[in-house]
Amino acid sequence: MFITRLFTLYPEMFPGPLSEGLFAKAIENKLWKLENIDIRKYSSDKNLKVDDTPYGGGSGMLIKPDVIGSALDNNVVKGEKVIFLTPRGKIFNQKIAKELSSEKVVNIICGRFEGIDQRVIETRNIEEYSIGDFILSGGETAAFVFIDAILRLLPGVLGNENSTKEESFENGLLEYPQYTKPQIWEEKEVPNVLLSGDHAKIKHWRLSQSEAITRDRRPDLWQKYNKKN
Amino acid sequence: MFITRLFTLYPEMFPGPLSEGLFAKAIENKLWKLENIDIRKYSSDKNLKVDDTPYGGGSGMLIKPDVIGSALDNNVVKGEKVIFLTPRGKIFNQKIAKELSSEKVVNIICGRFEGIDQRVIETRNIEEYSIGDFILSGGETAAFVFIDAILRLLPGVLGNENSTKEESFENGLLEYPQYTKPQIWEEKEVPNVLLSGDHAKIKHWRLSQSEAITRDRRPDLWQKYNKKN
Repeated sequence: MFITRLFTLYPEMFPGPLSEGLFAKAIENKLWKLENIDIRKYSSDKNLKVDDTPYGGGSGMLIKPDVIGSALDNNVVKGEKVIFLTPRGKIFNQKIAKELSSEKVVNIICGRFEGIDQRVIETRNIEEYSIGDFILSGGETAAFVFIDAILRLLPGVLGNENSTKEESFENGLLEYPQYTKPQIWEEKEVPNVLLSGDHAKIKHWRLSQSEAITRDRRPDLWQKYNKKN
Repeated sequence: MFITRLFTLYPEMFPGPLSEGLFAKAIENKLWKLENIDIRKYSSDKNLKVDDTPYGGGSGMLIKPDVIGSALDNNVVKGEKVIFLTPRGKIFNQKIAKELSSEKVVNIICGRFEGIDQRVIETRNIEEYSIGDFILSGGETAAFVFIDAILRLLPGVLGNENSTKEESFENGLLEYPQYTKPQIWEEKEVPNVLLSGDHAKIKHWRLSQSEAITRDRRPDLWQKYNKKN
Protein backbone atom coordinates (compact mmCIF):
# COMPACT_ATOMS: atom_id res chain seq x y z
CA MET A 1 0.00 0.00 0.00
CA PHE A 2 1.22 3.46 -0.96
CA ILE A 3 1.11 6.03 1.84
CA THR A 4 1.10 9.80 1.46
CA ARG A 5 1.74 11.59 4.73
CA LEU A 6 0.71 15.23 4.56
CA PHE A 7 2.04 17.95 6.85
CA THR A 8 -0.32 20.89 6.79
CA LEU A 9 -1.79 23.76 8.81
CA TYR A 10 -5.14 22.98 7.14
CA PRO A 11 -5.74 19.30 7.90
CA GLU A 12 -9.48 19.86 7.38
CA MET A 13 -8.80 20.34 3.65
CA PHE A 14 -7.96 16.62 3.35
CA PRO A 15 -8.95 14.20 1.96
CA GLY A 16 -11.50 16.59 0.38
CA PRO A 17 -11.56 15.85 -3.35
CA LEU A 18 -9.27 12.88 -2.74
CA SER A 19 -12.22 10.97 -1.29
CA GLU A 20 -14.07 10.87 -4.63
CA GLY A 21 -13.88 8.84 -7.83
CA LEU A 22 -10.78 6.75 -8.35
CA PHE A 23 -9.24 8.03 -5.11
CA ALA A 24 -12.14 6.52 -3.15
CA LYS A 25 -11.60 3.21 -4.95
CA ALA A 26 -7.86 3.30 -4.25
CA ILE A 27 -8.60 3.68 -0.52
CA GLU A 28 -11.29 0.96 -0.57
CA ASN A 29 -9.00 -1.45 -2.39
CA LYS A 30 -6.23 -0.71 0.10
CA LEU A 31 -3.91 0.58 -2.62
CA TRP A 32 -3.44 3.94 -0.93
CA LYS A 33 -3.70 5.59 2.45
CA LEU A 34 -3.59 9.28 3.32
CA GLU A 35 -2.14 10.31 6.68
CA ASN A 36 -2.87 13.83 7.75
CA ILE A 37 -0.50 15.57 10.19
CA ASP A 38 -1.52 18.88 11.75
CA ILE A 39 1.72 20.89 11.96
CA ARG A 40 0.22 23.13 14.65
CA LYS A 41 0.09 20.23 17.11
CA TYR A 42 3.89 20.28 17.23
CA SER A 43 4.17 23.85 18.44
CA SER A 44 5.66 24.09 21.94
CA ASP A 45 4.22 27.59 22.32
CA LYS A 46 1.30 27.94 24.73
CA ASN A 47 -0.73 29.75 22.04
CA LEU A 48 0.25 27.12 19.44
CA LYS A 49 2.07 29.75 17.42
CA VAL A 50 3.86 28.20 14.43
CA ASP A 51 5.32 31.17 12.55
CA ASP A 52 7.61 34.13 13.07
CA THR A 53 9.12 37.03 11.10
CA PRO A 54 12.07 36.51 8.73
CA TYR A 55 15.59 37.51 9.78
CA GLY A 56 16.93 40.26 7.57
CA GLY A 57 13.52 41.82 7.08
CA GLY A 58 10.77 41.38 4.55
CA SER A 59 7.03 40.91 4.73
CA GLY A 60 5.29 37.67 5.53
CA MET A 61 5.94 34.99 8.08
CA LEU A 62 7.89 31.74 8.06
CA ILE A 63 7.08 28.43 9.72
CA LYS A 64 9.53 28.01 12.62
CA PRO A 65 12.21 25.30 12.32
CA ASP A 66 11.48 23.76 15.73
CA VAL A 67 7.78 23.29 14.89
CA ILE A 68 8.19 21.73 11.47
CA GLY A 69 11.27 19.82 12.65
CA SER A 70 9.30 18.27 15.49
CA ALA A 71 6.35 17.41 13.22
CA LEU A 72 8.73 15.58 10.86
CA ASP A 73 10.82 13.88 13.56
CA ASN A 74 7.71 12.46 15.21
CA ASN A 75 6.28 10.97 12.02
CA VAL A 76 8.83 10.35 9.29
CA VAL A 77 10.68 7.02 9.29
CA LYS A 78 14.30 7.02 8.16
CA GLY A 79 14.73 6.45 4.42
CA GLU A 80 11.35 7.90 3.48
CA LYS A 81 11.22 10.76 1.00
CA VAL A 82 10.25 14.16 2.37
CA ILE A 83 9.00 16.67 -0.17
CA PHE A 84 8.28 20.36 0.24
CA LEU A 85 5.99 21.90 -2.37
CA THR A 86 7.29 25.39 -3.13
CA PRO A 87 7.79 27.63 -6.18
CA ARG A 88 11.53 27.42 -5.36
CA GLY A 89 11.63 23.73 -6.18
CA LYS A 90 12.59 21.76 -9.23
CA ILE A 91 9.74 21.49 -11.70
CA PHE A 92 7.50 18.48 -11.03
CA ASN A 93 6.72 16.40 -14.10
CA GLN A 94 5.45 13.01 -15.24
CA LYS A 95 8.87 11.39 -14.88
CA ILE A 96 9.10 12.44 -11.23
CA ALA A 97 5.50 11.30 -10.64
CA LYS A 98 6.52 7.87 -11.96
CA GLU A 99 9.58 7.67 -9.75
CA LEU A 100 7.60 8.67 -6.66
CA SER A 101 4.88 6.11 -7.43
CA SER A 102 7.41 3.35 -6.71
CA GLU A 103 8.07 4.63 -3.16
CA LYS A 104 6.27 3.09 -0.19
CA VAL A 105 5.77 6.36 1.69
CA VAL A 106 5.96 9.93 0.44
CA ASN A 107 5.90 12.73 3.02
CA ILE A 108 4.59 16.03 1.70
CA ILE A 109 4.96 19.37 3.48
CA CYS A 110 2.41 21.98 2.46
CA GLY A 111 3.89 25.45 2.92
CA ARG A 112 1.99 28.54 4.04
CA PHE A 113 3.10 32.12 4.47
CA GLU A 114 6.59 32.79 3.09
CA GLY A 115 7.74 29.21 3.50
CA ILE A 116 9.79 27.31 6.06
CA ASP A 117 13.13 27.97 7.73
CA GLN A 118 16.03 26.92 5.50
CA ARG A 119 17.75 24.97 8.29
CA VAL A 120 14.92 22.41 8.36
CA ILE A 121 15.17 21.95 4.61
CA GLU A 122 18.90 21.25 4.88
CA THR A 123 18.99 19.09 8.01
CA ARG A 124 15.95 16.95 7.17
CA ASN A 125 17.09 16.17 3.63
CA ILE A 126 13.98 17.71 2.12
CA GLU A 127 13.46 17.71 -1.65
CA GLU A 128 11.77 20.81 -3.02
CA TYR A 129 9.37 20.55 -5.97
CA SER A 130 7.32 23.17 -7.75
CA ILE A 131 4.25 22.32 -9.81
CA GLY A 132 4.61 25.50 -11.88
CA ASP A 133 5.50 29.18 -12.13
CA PHE A 134 2.58 30.57 -10.19
CA ILE A 135 2.00 31.46 -6.56
CA LEU A 136 -0.58 29.68 -4.42
CA SER A 137 -1.99 30.58 -1.02
CA GLY A 138 -0.31 27.44 0.27
CA GLY A 139 0.94 24.02 -0.72
CA GLU A 140 -2.40 22.35 -0.09
CA THR A 141 -3.95 22.83 -3.55
CA ALA A 142 -0.61 21.82 -5.09
CA ALA A 143 -0.69 18.65 -2.97
CA PHE A 144 -3.97 17.55 -4.59
CA VAL A 145 -2.37 17.77 -8.01
CA PHE A 146 0.85 16.14 -6.84
CA ILE A 147 -0.97 13.21 -5.25
CA ASP A 148 -3.38 12.84 -8.19
CA ALA A 149 -0.48 12.56 -10.67
CA ILE A 150 1.21 9.87 -8.56
CA LEU A 151 -1.85 7.83 -7.55
CA ARG A 152 -3.13 7.16 -11.04
CA LEU A 153 0.21 5.49 -11.80
CA LEU A 154 -0.07 2.97 -8.94
CA PRO A 155 -0.75 -0.54 -10.23
CA GLY A 156 -4.49 -1.27 -10.00
CA VAL A 157 -5.73 2.28 -9.58
CA LEU A 158 -6.67 2.89 -13.22
CA GLY A 159 -7.51 -0.77 -13.83
CA ASN A 160 -6.63 -2.02 -17.29
CA GLU A 161 -7.17 1.24 -19.10
CA ASN A 162 -4.35 2.32 -21.31
CA SER A 163 -4.04 6.02 -21.56
CA THR A 164 -3.24 7.34 -25.00
CA LYS A 165 -2.57 10.64 -23.27
CA GLU A 166 0.32 9.00 -21.53
CA GLU A 167 1.71 7.50 -24.70
CA SER A 168 1.31 10.76 -26.50
CA PHE A 169 2.97 12.66 -23.69
CA GLU A 170 5.91 10.29 -23.58
CA ASN A 171 6.92 11.03 -27.15
CA GLY A 172 7.44 14.61 -25.98
CA LEU A 173 4.55 16.06 -27.97
CA LEU A 174 1.14 17.42 -27.03
CA GLU A 175 -1.83 15.29 -27.90
CA TYR A 176 -3.56 15.45 -31.31
CA PRO A 177 -7.22 16.57 -31.53
CA GLN A 178 -9.79 13.93 -30.72
CA TYR A 179 -13.35 13.40 -31.99
CA THR A 180 -16.27 11.24 -30.93
CA LYS A 181 -19.94 10.74 -31.86
CA PRO A 182 -22.00 12.19 -33.39
CA GLN A 183 -20.13 12.04 -36.69
CA ILE A 184 -21.78 15.26 -37.78
CA TRP A 185 -22.40 17.79 -35.02
CA GLU A 186 -23.68 21.30 -35.72
CA GLU A 187 -22.88 20.64 -39.39
CA LYS A 188 -19.24 19.99 -38.53
CA GLU A 189 -17.86 16.63 -39.62
CA VAL A 190 -15.19 14.51 -38.04
CA PRO A 191 -12.01 14.68 -40.23
CA ASN A 192 -12.31 12.14 -43.04
CA VAL A 193 -9.02 10.45 -42.32
CA LEU A 194 -10.32 9.25 -38.94
CA LEU A 195 -13.18 7.42 -40.69
CA SER A 196 -10.89 5.85 -43.31
CA GLY A 197 -9.94 2.75 -41.34
CA ASP A 198 -6.41 3.20 -42.70
CA HIS A 199 -4.34 2.88 -39.54
CA ALA A 200 -1.05 4.05 -41.05
CA LYS A 201 -2.73 7.15 -42.45
CA ILE A 202 -4.45 7.88 -39.14
CA LYS A 203 -1.19 7.50 -37.26
CA HIS A 204 0.55 9.85 -39.66
CA TRP A 205 -2.24 12.47 -39.41
CA ARG A 206 -2.20 12.33 -35.63
CA LEU A 207 1.57 12.74 -35.48
CA SER A 208 1.49 15.75 -37.81
CA GLN A 209 -1.31 17.32 -35.72
CA SER A 210 0.68 16.69 -32.53
CA GLU A 211 3.74 18.27 -34.07
CA ALA A 212 1.79 21.33 -35.22
CA ILE A 213 0.15 21.98 -31.86
CA THR A 214 3.41 21.44 -29.96
CA ARG A 215 5.29 23.84 -32.24
CA ASP A 216 2.56 26.43 -31.74
CA ARG A 217 1.98 26.15 -27.99
CA ARG A 218 5.16 24.76 -26.51
CA PRO A 219 8.33 25.96 -28.24
CA ASP A 220 10.25 24.46 -25.28
CA LEU A 221 8.98 20.93 -25.94
CA TRP A 222 9.28 21.43 -29.68
CA GLN A 223 12.96 22.28 -29.39
CA LYS A 224 13.64 19.16 -27.29
CA TYR A 225 11.66 17.00 -29.70
CA ASN A 226 13.66 18.22 -32.66
CA LYS A 227 16.94 17.51 -30.95
CA LYS A 228 15.85 13.92 -30.32
CA ASN A 229 14.33 13.18 -33.73
CA MET B 1 -17.54 39.95 -7.32
CA PHE B 2 -15.40 37.45 -9.19
CA ILE B 3 -17.21 34.31 -10.34
CA THR B 4 -15.65 31.00 -11.26
CA ARG B 5 -18.09 28.68 -13.01
CA LEU B 6 -16.89 25.11 -13.00
CA PHE B 7 -18.03 22.44 -15.45
CA THR B 8 -17.32 19.03 -14.01
CA LEU B 9 -18.48 15.42 -13.82
CA TYR B 10 -17.54 15.50 -10.12
CA PRO B 11 -19.50 18.46 -8.73
CA GLU B 12 -19.29 16.91 -5.24
CA MET B 13 -15.53 17.67 -5.24
CA PHE B 14 -16.33 21.41 -4.96
CA PRO B 15 -15.92 23.67 -3.11
CA GLY B 16 -13.97 21.08 -1.02
CA PRO B 17 -10.69 22.74 0.02
CA LEU B 18 -11.94 26.02 -1.48
CA SER B 19 -14.26 26.45 1.50
CA GLU B 20 -11.36 26.83 3.98
CA GLY B 21 -8.99 29.61 5.00
CA LEU B 22 -8.79 32.63 2.75
CA PHE B 23 -11.25 31.09 0.29
CA ALA B 24 -13.92 31.01 3.00
CA LYS B 25 -13.22 34.67 3.78
CA ALA B 26 -13.41 35.59 0.08
CA ILE B 27 -16.87 34.00 -0.10
CA GLU B 28 -18.01 35.62 3.17
CA ASN B 29 -16.80 39.04 2.02
CA LYS B 30 -18.59 38.58 -1.30
CA LEU B 31 -15.34 38.87 -3.24
CA TRP B 32 -15.80 35.52 -4.92
CA LYS B 33 -18.49 33.02 -5.83
CA LEU B 34 -18.12 29.47 -7.10
CA GLU B 35 -20.78 28.09 -9.43
CA ASN B 36 -20.76 24.39 -9.92
CA ILE B 37 -22.22 22.91 -13.13
CA ASP B 38 -22.76 19.15 -13.38
CA ILE B 39 -21.94 18.29 -17.00
CA ARG B 40 -23.93 15.05 -16.75
CA LYS B 41 -27.19 16.97 -16.36
CA TYR B 42 -26.84 18.11 -19.98
CA SER B 43 -26.81 14.62 -21.44
CA SER B 44 -29.84 13.93 -23.63
CA ASP B 45 -29.25 10.19 -23.28
CA LYS B 46 -31.74 8.31 -21.12
CA ASN B 47 -28.88 6.74 -19.15
CA LEU B 48 -27.15 10.13 -18.85
CA LYS B 49 -24.20 8.86 -20.83
CA VAL B 50 -21.67 11.63 -21.49
CA ASP B 51 -18.79 9.90 -23.28
CA ASP B 52 -18.06 7.80 -26.33
CA THR B 53 -15.10 6.18 -28.12
CA PRO B 54 -12.71 8.24 -30.26
CA TYR B 55 -12.95 8.17 -34.05
CA GLY B 56 -9.84 6.69 -35.61
CA GLY B 57 -9.29 4.31 -32.70
CA GLY B 58 -7.37 4.51 -29.48
CA SER B 59 -8.12 3.70 -25.88
CA GLY B 60 -10.10 5.87 -23.53
CA MET B 61 -13.31 7.81 -23.96
CA LEU B 62 -14.10 11.40 -24.91
CA ILE B 63 -16.81 13.70 -23.62
CA LYS B 64 -19.40 14.10 -26.41
CA PRO B 65 -19.65 17.49 -28.13
CA ASP B 66 -23.44 17.75 -27.73
CA VAL B 67 -23.23 17.22 -23.96
CA ILE B 68 -20.45 19.71 -23.22
CA GLY B 69 -21.82 22.12 -25.84
CA SER B 70 -25.23 22.14 -24.17
CA ALA B 71 -23.69 22.59 -20.70
CA LEU B 72 -21.79 25.64 -21.95
CA ASP B 73 -24.63 27.13 -24.01
CA ASN B 74 -27.00 27.00 -21.04
CA ASN B 75 -24.63 28.75 -18.64
CA VAL B 76 -21.95 30.85 -20.31
CA VAL B 77 -22.79 34.46 -21.14
CA LYS B 78 -21.31 35.92 -24.33
CA GLY B 79 -17.93 37.58 -23.79
CA GLU B 80 -16.96 35.43 -20.82
CA LYS B 81 -13.74 33.47 -20.97
CA VAL B 82 -14.06 29.70 -21.24
CA ILE B 83 -11.02 27.70 -20.21
CA PHE B 84 -10.32 24.01 -20.60
CA LEU B 85 -7.65 22.57 -18.33
CA THR B 86 -5.67 20.01 -20.32
CA PRO B 87 -2.03 18.93 -20.76
CA ARG B 88 -2.41 20.09 -24.39
CA GLY B 89 -2.80 23.70 -23.34
CA LYS B 90 -0.45 26.62 -23.09
CA ILE B 91 1.45 26.64 -19.81
CA PHE B 92 -0.40 28.48 -17.04
CA ASN B 93 1.73 30.95 -15.11
CA GLN B 94 1.58 33.93 -12.77
CA LYS B 95 1.13 36.39 -15.64
CA ILE B 96 -1.96 34.54 -16.88
CA ALA B 97 -3.29 34.28 -13.32
CA LYS B 98 -3.03 38.07 -13.07
CA GLU B 99 -4.81 38.62 -16.36
CA LEU B 100 -7.62 36.27 -15.40
CA SER B 101 -8.02 37.94 -11.99
CA SER B 102 -9.29 41.05 -13.78
CA GLU B 103 -12.15 39.15 -15.47
CA LYS B 104 -15.65 39.16 -13.99
CA VAL B 105 -16.42 35.55 -14.77
CA VAL B 106 -14.10 32.69 -15.67
CA ASN B 107 -15.63 29.43 -16.89
CA ILE B 108 -13.49 26.37 -16.28
CA ILE B 109 -14.06 22.98 -17.88
CA CYS B 110 -12.57 20.06 -15.97
CA GLY B 111 -11.74 17.26 -18.39
CA ARG B 112 -12.02 13.56 -17.68
CA PHE B 113 -11.16 10.50 -19.77
CA GLU B 114 -9.24 11.37 -22.96
CA GLY B 115 -10.63 14.91 -23.15
CA ILE B 116 -13.41 16.58 -25.11
CA ASP B 117 -14.38 16.61 -28.77
CA GLN B 118 -12.27 19.10 -30.75
CA ARG B 119 -15.31 20.66 -32.42
CA VAL B 120 -16.54 22.07 -29.10
CA ILE B 121 -13.13 23.57 -28.42
CA GLU B 122 -13.17 25.32 -31.79
CA THR B 123 -16.79 26.48 -31.94
CA ARG B 124 -17.01 27.68 -28.31
CA ASN B 125 -13.79 29.68 -28.47
CA ILE B 126 -12.27 27.70 -25.64
CA GLU B 127 -8.78 28.55 -24.38
CA GLU B 128 -6.69 25.56 -23.34
CA TYR B 129 -4.29 25.82 -20.41
CA SER B 130 -2.01 23.28 -18.79
CA ILE B 131 -0.71 23.61 -15.27
CA GLY B 132 2.29 21.39 -16.02
CA ASP B 133 3.78 18.40 -17.79
CA PHE B 134 2.07 15.68 -15.81
CA ILE B 135 -1.13 13.72 -16.27
CA LEU B 136 -4.01 13.95 -13.80
CA SER B 137 -7.09 11.77 -13.43
CA GLY B 138 -9.11 14.82 -14.43
CA GLY B 139 -9.10 18.59 -14.49
CA GLU B 140 -10.63 18.88 -11.02
CA THR B 141 -7.40 18.87 -8.99
CA ALA B 142 -5.88 21.26 -11.53
CA ALA B 143 -8.89 23.56 -11.04
CA PHE B 144 -8.10 23.94 -7.33
CA VAL B 145 -4.62 25.19 -8.17
CA PHE B 146 -5.85 27.38 -11.02
CA ILE B 147 -8.51 29.04 -8.85
CA ASP B 148 -6.13 29.40 -5.88
CA ALA B 149 -3.55 31.24 -8.01
CA ILE B 150 -6.20 33.65 -9.32
CA LEU B 151 -8.16 34.25 -6.10
CA ARG B 152 -5.23 35.40 -3.99
CA LEU B 153 -4.66 38.18 -6.54
CA LEU B 154 -8.18 39.62 -6.17
CA PRO B 155 -8.17 42.93 -4.32
CA GLY B 156 -9.05 42.37 -0.66
CA VAL B 157 -8.46 38.62 -0.55
CA LEU B 158 -4.96 38.72 0.94
CA GLY B 159 -5.64 41.93 2.88
CA ASN B 160 -2.69 44.25 3.13
CA GLU B 161 -0.03 41.61 3.10
CA ASN B 162 2.73 42.16 0.61
CA SER B 163 4.17 38.97 -0.62
CA THR B 164 7.90 38.93 -1.03
CA LYS B 165 7.41 35.69 -2.89
CA GLU B 166 5.59 37.61 -5.54
CA GLU B 167 8.26 40.28 -5.79
CA SER B 168 10.95 37.66 -5.92
CA PHE B 169 9.11 35.71 -8.57
CA GLU B 170 8.59 38.77 -10.71
CA ASN B 171 12.29 39.40 -11.12
CA GLY B 172 12.42 36.00 -12.83
CA LEU B 173 14.42 34.30 -10.09
CA LEU B 174 13.58 31.70 -7.46
CA GLU B 175 13.34 32.93 -3.90
CA TYR B 176 16.39 33.15 -1.61
CA PRO B 177 16.54 31.03 1.57
CA GLN B 178 14.66 32.41 4.56
CA TYR B 179 15.28 32.09 8.30
CA THR B 180 13.25 32.81 11.40
CA LYS B 181 13.52 32.34 15.18
CA PRO B 182 15.20 30.78 17.06
CA GLN B 183 18.47 32.37 16.01
CA ILE B 184 20.33 29.22 16.93
CA TRP B 185 18.47 25.99 16.28
CA GLU B 186 20.09 22.58 16.68
CA GLU B 187 23.42 24.41 16.86
CA LYS B 188 22.83 25.93 13.45
CA GLU B 189 22.94 29.71 13.25
CA VAL B 190 21.10 32.09 10.99
CA PRO B 191 23.58 33.52 8.41
CA ASN B 192 25.39 36.50 9.96
CA VAL B 193 24.55 38.89 7.17
CA LEU B 194 20.84 38.66 8.02
CA LEU B 195 21.57 39.87 11.55
CA SER B 196 23.79 42.75 10.39
CA GLY B 197 21.04 45.32 9.90
CA ASP B 198 22.88 46.41 6.74
CA HIS B 199 20.05 46.52 4.23
CA ALA B 200 22.21 46.91 1.14
CA LYS B 201 24.35 43.94 2.17
CA ILE B 202 21.26 41.83 2.90
CA LYS B 203 19.75 42.71 -0.45
CA HIS B 204 22.97 41.77 -2.20
CA TRP B 205 23.23 38.46 -0.33
CA ARG B 206 19.64 37.57 -1.13
CA LEU B 207 20.07 38.36 -4.82
CA SER B 208 23.21 36.23 -5.07
CA GLN B 209 21.41 33.36 -3.31
CA SER B 210 18.44 33.71 -5.66
CA GLU B 211 20.76 33.65 -8.65
CA ALA B 212 22.59 30.57 -7.39
CA ILE B 213 19.45 28.55 -6.74
CA THR B 214 17.88 29.58 -10.04
CA ARG B 215 20.99 28.60 -11.98
CA ASP B 216 21.04 25.24 -10.23
CA ARG B 217 17.37 24.30 -10.38
CA ARG B 218 15.89 26.18 -13.31
CA PRO B 219 18.26 26.56 -16.24
CA ASP B 220 15.24 27.75 -18.27
CA LEU B 221 14.58 30.73 -15.98
CA TRP B 222 18.29 31.38 -15.63
CA GLN B 223 18.70 31.69 -19.38
CA LYS B 224 15.81 34.17 -19.62
CA TYR B 225 17.16 36.16 -16.66
CA ASN B 226 20.57 36.51 -18.26
CA LYS B 227 19.08 37.71 -21.52
CA LYS B 228 17.21 40.45 -19.68
CA ASN B 229 20.01 41.58 -17.35
